[in-house]
Amino acid sequence: MSILVVGSVAFDDVTSPSGSVKNVLAGAATYFSLAASYFTKVRVVAVVGDDFGPDQEKVFQQHGIDIRGLERANGKTFRWGGTYTENLNEAKTDFTHLNVFESFKPQIPKEYEDSDYLFLANIQPTLQADVRRKMTRVRLVGCDTMNYWIKGTPKELAETLKLVDILLINDTEAKMLAHETNLPRAAQKVMAMGPQALVIKHGEYGATIFFREGAFGFGRHPFRAPALPIDEVKDPTGAGDSFAGGFMGYLASQKEINREVLKRAMFYGSVMGSFVVERFGTERLQSLTRDEIDARFQIFRELTHLE
Amino acid sequence: MSILVVGSVAFDDVTSPSGSVKNVLAGAATYFSLAASYFTKVRVVAVVGDDFGPDQEKVFQQHGIDIRGLERANGKTFRWGGTYTENLNEAKTDFTHLNVFESFKPQIPKEYEDSDYLFLANIQPTLQADVRRKMTRVRLVGCDTMNYWIKGTPKELAETLKLVDILLINDTEAKMLAHETNLPRAAQKVMAMGPQALVIKHGEYGATIFFREGAFGFGRHPFRAPALPIDEVKDPTGAGDSFAGGFMGYLASQKEINREVLKRAMFYGSVMGSFVVERFGTERLQSLTRDEIDARFQIFRELTHLE
Repeated sequence: MSILVVGSVAFDDVTSPSGSVKNVLAGAATYFSLAASYFTKVRVVAVVGDDFGPDQEKVFQQHGIDIRGLERANGKTFRWGGTYTENLNEAKTDFTHLNVFESFKPQIPKEYEDSDYLFLANIQPTLQADVRRKMTRVRLVGCDTMNYWIKGTPKELAETLKLVDILLINDTEAKMLAHETNLPRAAQKVMAMGPQALVIKHGEYGATIFFREGAFGFGRHPFRAPALPIDEVKDPTGAGDSFAGGFMGYLASQKEINREVLKRAMFYGSVMGSFVVERFGTERLQSLTRDEIDARFQIFRELTHLE
Repeated sequence: MSILVVGSVAFDDVTSPSGSVKNVLAGAATYFSLAASYFTKVRVVAVVGDDFGPDQEKVFQQHGIDIRGLERANGKTFRWGGTYTENLNEAKTDFTHLNVFESFKPQIPKEYEDSDYLFLANIQPTLQADVRRKMTRVRLVGCDTMNYWIKGTPKELAETLKLVDILLINDTEAKMLAHETNLPRAAQKVMAMGPQALVIKHGEYGATIFFREGAFGFGRHPFRAPALPIDEVKDPTGAGDSFAGGFMGYLASQKEINREVLKRAMFYGSVMGSFVVERFGTERLQSLTRDEIDARFQIFRELTHLE
C-alpha cells in the first residue's frame, strides 16, 4: 500500500569525529522516504529550491519514490549544519537556513489523495493538522514532532495529536510533552492526548512502543526493540526519521495491523536506524538491498531472542 | 551449586520522590545475596558492627543464606545516605560512614573454600584480587567495580581484571575504564584487560553482554536483555547488585554454562533489578517467590519476543 510523507528536504553540512561532509541531501522527508521505499510505495510532499536538481531527483527516482508532490520554489533549499562531538547523542547546530522551507504550505497533489498511510514528519503542528484533515481516506497516521514545537506551540500540537494514530518521539521529547519524568507514566499521558500508540526512541538502546488499552485490539503491554551496538557511528543525523521510515513502511506493506506486525515494524525501524548512521547523510540508505535489511533483522532478533 | 559473595553490608538512609527511609539493611553483598538466594545456595563474606543484630541476621537466614563468613567488628556497620531527585539515575550522596568497613580484610571461612562460584562485589580491587587468588577451586568469577576505583586505583584494578571471568559494570564505568566513548569498542577494550565476558548495565534500558571471541565456546555476538518500564521507581539503590545476584545466581543453578544459559541469566538479572526498585531497600527482595520471578521473566520475554 502507498504511504505519503510530508516534511523537509534539506542539504546538510555535518561534522563528526569520523569526518565531515558538505551539502549532502538530507531532511526528514528524504530519510523517511528512502527508508520506507524498501518496503512500500512512497510519495513525498516537500519544498525544494532551485539548487535541487536532477542529481537529487535521481536519488528519489532510483528508489521508485513519487516526487510529484515536491514543490519547486524560488530560492535555496533548507540548509542545516551541525557538529557531533564524542557524545554522538546530540548535535550542536552550526546554522539553520530555512530558506524556501520558511513559507512551506504543503499542497497535496490530487494523485496522492488515495494514499493509504500518512506520515507527518517534524514540521509546524498546524501544517501537520491541515494535511491530516485533507487526507480523509488514510488508514493510519504516524507523526513526529520536536522540543521546539512542544515548548513553542503546545496548543497547536495538542490539536494535531488528537488527529494521529501513532506518535514517534524520543525519551526527552516524551517527558517534556507529558511534564513527567517517569517514562511509562509519560507514555500514558501522551496517549491520553490522542495517539493510540506511542513509539519512544531510545537512541542506542532501541525503542519502546506503548499501546493505549485496547488499541489495535490488544492490551497495553509495551514492546521493546533493541538497537544494534555499532562500532562506528559516523553520522547520527536522520536515525529517527529512518526508524520512522522502516516502521511505517513495513506497516504499509502488510495486509492488516496486529500486535505481531507492530512488533516486527519496531524491529524494521530499528534496523533502518542502524544502517543510516554507518555513513554520512543518506549514503547508506541509497545502496541497501532488501536481503541486507532482512539479514540485519535476523541479527536484531538474535540479539534479544530466548529459545 | 554454591556461590560466595564478598562485599559490603550496610545501613542506608534513602530519600526519593516516593518517600524516605532510615537505617534500612543494605549494601552490595546484601542485595546480591538476597537476589541470588532465589536460585542457589549463597555464602557471604562481609563485615558488620555491633549495631547488626538478630533482626538483620534473620533476613539472611530466612533466605537460607550462609552468614558464617560475616565478621563482627567493634564499632558501627557501614552507613550510607543518599537522595534521588526526579532523575532517578543518580543519587546525591548525603554521607558515607565507612565505620568497620574501612579496615575490612575479607577472611574466607574454611567451609566456604569449596564454593563453585565467586562474586566480587564493589570493594577495593586488591582485596578483590586477594580473595580471588584464595578461591582456587571456583568455576567462574564475577566482579563489579566503580568509578572511584577506576580513577583512583587503575593499576590495582587492572591486576584484578586479569583474574575474573565476567565483569558487570554500567555504561559510564565501561567508557571510563576503556577511555572510549563508543560502547562496543569500549567493551572490546575492557575484555582485552582480562574478562571473557562483560555485562554492561543500561539502567532502565536493560543490559548487554559482550563476549570475547570464542568465550564460552561462542562467537562474539552480544546479547541484550530489556528492562521493564516501571511506573514507580521508589528506590534505585541496589538495582545493579540485584541484577548481579539474579545473573550469577541463575548461572550457579545450572549444570553447564552455554550461550543460552547466559542469555537466560541476563533476563533473570534484569528481572531481579526490576523487583528491587519497587520498594525501598531490600524490602521487595525479602518477600519474593520463585513463581513471581518466573512470571516476570515471561513478561520480559514477551517484551522483546518475535514469534
